[in-house]
Amino acid sequence: MRAIVKPSAGPGLEMVDVPMPKVGPDDVLLQVKATSICGTDLHIRSWDPWAAAHVRPPLVVGHEMCGIVVDKGANADGPEVGQLVSVESHVVCGRCRFCRTGKGHLCENTQILGVHRDGVYAEYVAVPAINAWPDPPDMPYSIASLQENFGNAVHTVSVPDVAGRKVLVTGCGPVGVMAIAAAKALGARLIVASDLSDYRLKLAATMGADITLNPTRDDVHGTVMDLTEGEGVDVLLEMSGAPPAIAEGFKALVKGGEAALLGLTSHPIQFDLDDNVIFKGASVHGIVGRKLWDTWYEMRGLLRSGAVDLTPVVTHRFALDDFEKAFDLMESGECGKVVMFPDPSDADGPLS
Amino acid sequence: MRAIVKPSAGPGLEMVDVPMPKVGPDDVLLQVKATSICGTDLHIRSWDPWAAAHVRPPLVVGHEMCGIVVDKGANADGPEVGQLVSVESHVVCGRCRFCRTGKGHLCENTQILGVHRDGVYAEYVAVPAINAWPDPPDMPYSIASLQENFGNAVHTVSVPDVAGRKVLVTGCGPVGVMAIAAAKALGARLIVASDLSDYRLKLAATMGADITLNPTRDDVHGTVMDLTEGEGVDVLLEMSGAPPAIAEGFKALVKGGEAALLGLTSHPIQFDLDDNVIFKGASVHGIVGRKLWDTWYEMRGLLRSGAVDLTPVVTHRFALDDFEKAFDLMESGECGKVVMFPDPSDADGPLS
Amino acid sequence: MRAIVKPSAGPGLEMVDVPMPKVGPDDVLLQVKATSICGTDLHIRSWDPWAAAHVRPPLVVGHEMCGIVVDKGANADGPEVGQLVSVESHVVCGRCRFCRTGKGHLCENTQILGVHRDGVYAEYVAVPAINAWPDPPDMPYSIASLQENFGNAVHTVSVPDVAGRKVLVTGCGPVGVMAIAAAKALGARLIVASDLSDYRLKLAATMGADITLNPTRDDVHGTVMDLTEGEGVDVLLEMSGAPPAIAEGFKALVKGGEAALLGLTSHPIQFDLDDNVIFKGASVHGIVGRKLWDTWYEMRGLLRSGAVDLTPVVTHRFALDDFEKAFDLMESGECGKVVMFPDPSDADGPLS
Amino acid sequence: MRAIVKPSAGPGLEMVDVPMPKVGPDDVLLQVKATSICGTDLHIRSWDPWAAAHVRPPLVVGHEMCGIVVDKGANADGPEVGQLVSVESHVVCGRCRFCRTGKGHLCENTQILGVHRDGVYAEYVAVPAINAWPDPPDMPYSIASLQENFGNAVHTVSVPDVAGRKVLVTGCGPVGVMAIAAAKALGARLIVASDLSDYRLKLAATMGADITLNPTRDDVHGTVMDLTEGEGVDVLLEMSGAPPAIAEGFKALVKGGEAALLGLTSHPIQFDLDDNVIFKGASVHGIVGRKLWDTWYEMRGLLRSGAVDLTPVVTHRFALDDFEKAFDLMESGECGKVVMFPDPSDADGPLS
Repeated sequence: MRAIVKPSAGPGLEMVDVPMPKVGPDDVLLQVKATSICGTDLHIRSWDPWAAAHVRPPLVVGHEMCGIVVDKGANADGPEVGQLVSVESHVVCGRCRFCRTGKGHLCENTQILGVHRDGVYAEYVAVPAINAWPDPPDMPYSIASLQENFGNAVHTVSVPDVAGRKVLVTGCGPVGVMAIAAAKALGARLIVASDLSDYRLKLAATMGADITLNPTRDDVHGTVMDLTEGEGVDVLLEMSGAPPAIAEGFKALVKGGEAALLGLTSHPIQFDLDDNVIFKGASVHGIVGRKLWDTWYEMRGLLRSGAVDLTPVVTHRFALDDFEKAFDLMESGECGKVVMFPDPSDADGPLS
Repeated sequence: MRAIVKPSAGPGLEMVDVPMPKVGPDDVLLQVKATSICGTDLHIRSWDPWAAAHVRPPLVVGHEMCGIVVDKGANADGPEVGQLVSVESHVVCGRCRFCRTGKGHLCENTQILGVHRDGVYAEYVAVPAINAWPDPPDMPYSIASLQENFGNAVHTVSVPDVAGRKVLVTGCGPVGVMAIAAAKALGARLIVASDLSDYRLKLAATMGADITLNPTRDDVHGTVMDLTEGEGVDVLLEMSGAPPAIAEGFKALVKGGEAALLGLTSHPIQFDLDDNVIFKGASVHGIVGRKLWDTWYEMRGLLRSGAVDLTPVVTHRFALDDFEKAFDLMESGECGKVVMFPDPSDADGPLS
Repeated sequence: MRAIVKPSAGPGLEMVDVPMPKVGPDDVLLQVKATSICGTDLHIRSWDPWAAAHVRPPLVVGHEMCGIVVDKGANADGPEVGQLVSVESHVVCGRCRFCRTGKGHLCENTQILGVHRDGVYAEYVAVPAINAWPDPPDMPYSIASLQENFGNAVHTVSVPDVAGRKVLVTGCGPVGVMAIAAAKALGARLIVASDLSDYRLKLAATMGADITLNPTRDDVHGTVMDLTEGEGVDVLLEMSGAPPAIAEGFKALVKGGEAALLGLTSHPIQFDLDDNVIFKGASVHGIVGRKLWDTWYEMRGLLRSGAVDLTPVVTHRFALDDFEKAFDLMESGECGKVVMFPDPSDADGPLS
Repeated sequence: MRAIVKPSAGPGLEMVDVPMPKVGPDDVLLQVKATSICGTDLHIRSWDPWAAAHVRPPLVVGHEMCGIVVDKGANADGPEVGQLVSVESHVVCGRCRFCRTGKGHLCENTQILGVHRDGVYAEYVAVPAINAWPDPPDMPYSIASLQENFGNAVHTVSVPDVAGRKVLVTGCGPVGVMAIAAAKALGARLIVASDLSDYRLKLAATMGADITLNPTRDDVHGTVMDLTEGEGVDVLLEMSGAPPAIAEGFKALVKGGEAALLGLTSHPIQFDLDDNVIFKGASVHGIVGRKLWDTWYEMRGLLRSGAVDLTPVVTHRFALDDFEKAFDLMESGECGKVVMFPDPSDADGPLS
């Protein structure tokens, strides 16, 4: 079958022919219908230090997808052959202390598809049956593929209490704008969003931001203070990893407020624990992955009820064969989510 | 009456004669029985940048004390004349959003005794009646004086969940060792304490630390990992403000763990949000002051039940007239809490 | 001034002339602009056992209102003369353990306007300044009068976590329908409402209920199960106090769910702790009054942002002189909130 | 092998010879070293309505045990052959919504050993490997057997916040006295215990109750009020299921307090929701089973650290062959936990 692989240590990806995956006794075999690009995939293509430290080529890459169950191992419970499923990309052990106490997202033995084991940029992939999350048969493939990434957004939004509260979202990449939609659906009273890209701010507004600010020309702090009677926002959702946004975000947080941090800074930064956390009496929460499986149930509810519509987030579709173009677009930042289709006839919208 | 004042902008303190305080309609007048020294008082004596920015001389300094009610304003409810009371040093407005929603410790209009208004290193002081906390008549004056500071410890310990959990306390100054005692009383299963001073580590052990470590010769990380089956501690109580201790503390924190930060770093530091907070899925809580008045009730319970005995924390007693010696000792770090008595015959132990 | 009083123990109310209220040093004097009727007022008029046990005539009755500050005591902080305010009807001591620890709604010394001290069915009333909650000057009087009662609804909804969850509201009286609006605004994904009155169910739908059910002809349990994939609702808001509704509500609650109870049963009932609470692993929360002052801030946000519009809840307006007609209508149940105006020219809608 | 079975619908148990259990691919085979009697087993012996409704004979009964792993299925992870393990008696599906969201104790497909599938009163039993909890090799068999039941106690105590608080435990059967020990270890400041049996109250005192009260001669309410400055206890742990104890317990609960209910009432009771829950602003939590697997980790910590010593709870030991005597003693109530040994030479104390 065709698959996109990292052939050896170094920059670049290749589409090559690889053997069909083996289906273990607890696995399901999935025919990939749609697969989307995450920032992590860009790092793997460019082979940055993080990729060099974590990826052992050769490896099929990619971890966001939906597909149809076409085979099952002998012990595999769960979705039946023919079922449309989205995939949780973190394969966890189910036996460590974290897995056993509702913290599977922190499992010590996590294997991520497309990072630690063969991924989903392929015609077929085998995953543990428990990682295959049943979708309604009429869910568009591009939306189904997005769920894993939407889960990062939902996890971030669900940790602080946003209901009825004022929220600042710093960073309006795909996860940021999906967090905006989730915060809106979960009752946030005011959502202010900031980003350096006007393209992304426009998407943020579409997804539910009440106010969008570009720090290159807007006074984020002043605007927030005007909007909050001088108090600041109740909740900061930090989705950028950019030190100036982090500084701005904490400055805008009300005393006693809550911050949820998802954006990675990639290296230590100058950070004022006194003013940002201690004097402020703030609570700061680190977010990683999706809560297994609370986040998936929460996503299901938000999508099925119509409280969140992810359609606008999918801005571009490509044939998987055109992955280089898709990756280049993603690098440019002038897009929302970019979805690829191994079989172009599966595309649920016009291909770029 | 005699009082210790900061006479003008610049280093030093003086004992001088000042007028008796005026007693407002909602105030009580207290005869000071004992008063203790806090790190803040050292900053004010040495006139460091923080002091220069916050203190407007001339001012009576000091904020930890106990005393006897000797007069009351016309509207003053609360303790009766003759009652022994400890004093909450934060005079809050009771009307701002924070005061009205159980976050009085974050009041925007806070006036701290000895910082923003006349303090307690004096024979008498007037404070709002609501700031005067009734003590049992037989509580030793030195213990009663400590409560305000003990409250910082109790507040810190009460924010994360320590019951049945493994705790690391970085920094064993007076608040640190009182936090150890509070954590022990609230059910912590294992308490590891670190400090650079062996004097303080000895006090930490007396107050309930199971293991004491001096980073100048002990492997803090390795020891914590050995004691926790390689997982790390559930809770970090950071009481030092020292960047190496902060780094060590977060490194030793289990994934999904909780940190409560009280120690001030005084300036921005290099901090790895990725490893310390985000990848770890940690929650980090800033601690300031005492919760008004939850912390005081919690303290009352811990002291009355005998669950916490603060006696060993009071290592030295001085006449208030000898304040320079008392301050010098406090600067040396070779002490726990240092208590001063305006009337030496009130001392509940031998004077130094 | 004119006021509606309970002249002596026994049924009935009278409009009589009474002296102007005295304004204490911490009080504000309010000119009443609008006042609304609560179920409690009906009990006081009819002099049921609860009223006989709690009310000591003669007394001006009524506790829901808004008005304009016309005078202030010497120590009274807070709203200025000319300010429109709503009134918190629970006058609390501010000094007991409950008041001091964020549980003022449970104050042991609570004095309720119109129950324990003179109330608001009058031209003027004096209340502690802290009980006068500033409103925007353009808030309609009828809405401003409703806030105290809306606060019961907001308090109920804020205790369980409704964001993104499925909710059943049993009982669609005024507080019930306002709870529906609050739950909607705070992100509830599905709201099912039940009541015996079709009039009230219609109002429930207007205020945001997705599904309205009348147990006299609808299968509440079956419908809930159909709507929740056989699991039940995540949250029960019990606003009726009616034993059959309570039984139905708990039966429809998912295992591990949360119930908030506001409706009073007036006497012990048959209750199955095993099935309703223990086997279900449920959490059940009793709701009384409004959280002081968290609930008021939450209300302010919900109203100012437009997330909740209470306009449809005000179904009838009367001159205060016509209070007997207003009370009779309220007894009939064929209404939402009934608002009365001491000065009919203040009415913000046609009088009945 | 020998096993105690319920041969057919009706009273009584028999020791008979049954085939060795089959070991499924995910199972471990355990040689039973010790097994203890729970109230449920008494219901099954006497064949009360609950047993008649839930048990399908013939069936090996019993569900509390420890044993040694003697064989493993092909897919079975977890404990190795030769390992001492305790057994979680609830075999859950791992796939339903409850299992997937940290609420495995509410799993819809729960199979309980000795109730829905063959149990542990036998020489051998096969259980899923994940249900076999590794113990230190030197843990006494009687203590290891108790853990499943101790878990009920730990779960109950862990739901409300007991650290630093005043607690009333109504009902001092085995689970009640283990809850007392857990509450003590988790920092409860005061533990009051009530029961009708002086034998049990004595055990309660041994396990850590500060005050023990027998309602047949002591004034429970008055004593609690004296001990709590007239406020009541912060936490009620209801372990009896007896209506008078439930009434007394709620009456003694402070306003805003928390109750955790484990004791089953077996049928609806008269319950005053107004006074017990609503006016009180109380939170009431139903407790079932053990949290999978948080409770087991918490137990491990409490036992390994020495914070809880269960030794005094084991009051009697019997050979499994003498099960009728053991059951009769358990029926009498004049005992703590009764442990039986299939091989009497495994007994860790004198046999009765």
